[in-house]
Amino acid sequence: MAIPSEMKALLLVGDGYTRTPSGFALEAMEPYLEPGDISVPAPGPTQVLIKVSLASINPSDIAFIKGQYGQPRVKGQPAGFEGVGTVVAGGDGPYPKSLVGKRVAFATGVTNWGSWADYAVAEAVVCIPLLDTVRDEDGAAMIVNPLTALAMFDIVKEAGEKAFIMTAGASQLCKLIAGLAKEEGYRPIATVRRDEQIPLLKEIGAAHVLNEKAADFKAALREVIKAEQPRIFLDAVTGPLASTIFDAMPKRSRWIIYGRLDGEATVIREPGQLIFQHKHVEGFWLSEWMRQFRDKRGPAILEAQKRFSDGRWSTDVTAVVPLAEAMAKVPAELAKPNGKVFIKP
Amino acid sequence: MAIPSEMKALLLVGDGYTRTPSGFALEAMEPYLEPGDISVPAPGPTQVLIKVSLASINPSDIAFIKGQYGQPRVKGQPAGFEGVGTVVAGGDGPYPKSLVGKRVAFATGVTNWGSWADYAVAEAVVCIPLLDTVRDEDGAAMIVNPLTALAMFDIVKEAGEKAFIMTAGASQLCKLIAGLAKEEGYRPIATVRRDEQIPLLKEIGAAHVLNEKAADFKAALREVIKAEQPRIFLDAVTGPLASTIFDAMPKRSRWIIYGRLDGEATVIREPGQLIFQHKHVEGFWLSEWMRQFRDKRGPAILEAQKRFSDGRWSTDVTAVVPLAEAMAKVPAELAKPNGKVFIKP
Repeated sequence: MAIPSEMKALLLVGDGYTRTPSGFALEAMEPYLEPGDISVPAPGPTQVLIKVSLASINPSDIAFIKGQYGQPRVKGQPAGFEGVGTVVAGGDGPYPKSLVGKRVAFATGVTNWGSWADYAVAEAVVCIPLLDTVRDEDGAAMIVNPLTALAMFDIVKEAGEKAFIMTAGASQLCKLIAGLAKEEGYRPIATVRRDEQIPLLKEIGAAHVLNEKAADFKAALREVIKAEQPRIFLDAVTGPLASTIFDAMPKRSRWIIYGRLDGEATVIREPGQLIFQHKHVEGFWLSEWMRQFRDKRGPAILEAQKRFSDGRWSTDVTAVVPLAEAMAKVPAELAKPNGKVFIKP
Repeated sequence: MAIPSEMKALLLVGDGYTRTPSGFALEAMEPYLEPGDISVPAPGPTQVLIKVSLASINPSDIAFIKGQYGQPRVKGQPAGFEGVGTVVAGGDGPYPKSLVGKRVAFATGVTNWGSWADYAVAEAVVCIPLLDTVRDEDGAAMIVNPLTALAMFDIVKEAGEKAFIMTAGASQLCKLIAGLAKEEGYRPIATVRRDEQIPLLKEIGAAHVLNEKAADFKAALREVIKAEQPRIFLDAVTGPLASTIFDAMPKRSRWIIYGRLDGEATVIREPGQLIFQHKHVEGFWLSEWMRQFRDKRGPAILEAQKRFSDGRWSTDVTAVVPLAEAMAKVPAELAKPNGKVFIKP
């Protein structure tokens, strides 16, 4: 496959971190990205160059392009943390070379050559050669959500309680977790922001779904917590909602923060609960989990591929937006509920 | 020793928890305590009755009488968590009986018969028979502060970093920890609220002492943290000061809350630090530590007695207030810096 010298990409406008954090929603692309032509990069010794077939858009991408994710932006480089594509070149090592010609799911990590481009660069070790039975839409969204779902559900299982709480319950991630939980008899309690999200989530596997905007939310929350005694709280939101939930949870509860969808202050309402009730606040990051639990990585990857192959898992697609139309169309597509938006180079 | 049927005590005015939490300072006794005559209790089977020689006043006592500690008040019962005295009666078991006639340091825990009274009730297992070489002032303040100091310094040592941070640096507890740290070459960073507290704390063992009220506090804090890389934060304060400190600490830092001297909101400034920098928020409670680390309890008690006996430790006494004068005099004595206030029945 001939590799051109130049490519189209969506390039970061900002550098480093923002000084004016805002919410999760992407009101427009222009403040954060610009379309551009840029040289196709050469992969480093441990890396591969991938011709991108389809790139996903995750909440972490939005946080990143806004400069409010855990790693600094490099102005002028392509955005996009995840995608699927074909490896067209590899670094000198045997493993990168062995991937050339293969279709892989990939995460770009800190290479600064993101997936919202014709070509991307990833470390060879974070590429997952895909079974033919895995669709591009599933491969492009294989790492961030599915592996996070398997990892976080593993934390729930190790903690030993059947019930647990999730905010942002209508997200792809929480739907995956709800499905896993249902299979093994666990009882997820999910919060959502729209009543119409409730029936679907219950069908997928949530034991309780609470609308955080409902007038009786706090009373309903207290009742469910009293009945189910959840001690793990998987939180994508932070801010007042998460503070309220953690405050209402029983002794020895763990508030595990993995996202920051609400930019408002995150308050520990009763620090005395940490002293006298042994409650904890901690974080979850997939990269850290993979570092800490190397032995769990391979089985989790295989499990994700099997589930996408046999149809137990399937990524809900809201839209596939051509790269050339992404600047204009992505914000409106992202604003739609319930599915995932992809960029197609 | 003849045991009378009635005794003097300072009795709790409130019941359960307060609905209007306030700060740490004790503005007056009257809202929370009243002097009274009450029947001398009979100890339960596992308990002992102690004729109180001297009772200490800890920050946890103030929080408790105000209804903002981790256990509910029982209206009309004597306050006071800790003291020294002579066991005058014991429950039926061999261990309670064996303590009769002995001078002990004691903690009343949840017996609801506190030490601010002529007689108190404690579980026999939380009485520490004292060496003759331990003064009453040290015995009366042997459990809450010294054992907490040894336990929290143990956490510092297990974490493996030489530097650590403490708020409320001028407290008896922090002075004990600073002394332990100095002996073993650790580097405490303490915050205080008055410049005059700085020289003494440095002499005792603090590597750095920062006045949280100073105009350049935040800059000084950042500089010290950069130089020392502390990862353990022993926090008695919470609120904005603690939030600022935790926010400035490096990756993998642990914010360990053991007190709540500031009633203001406790904010996790950057929840992203929990996700991407593996920072944690947790609590410390001596009772829980003793439950979790039973093997460490005996050696810690022996160590505390040795230190008080040979003069390495010595409790700074601000005042010894007779029980009959406590209502009038305790608030003013407590407001003085640097030492401990005792009640003498």
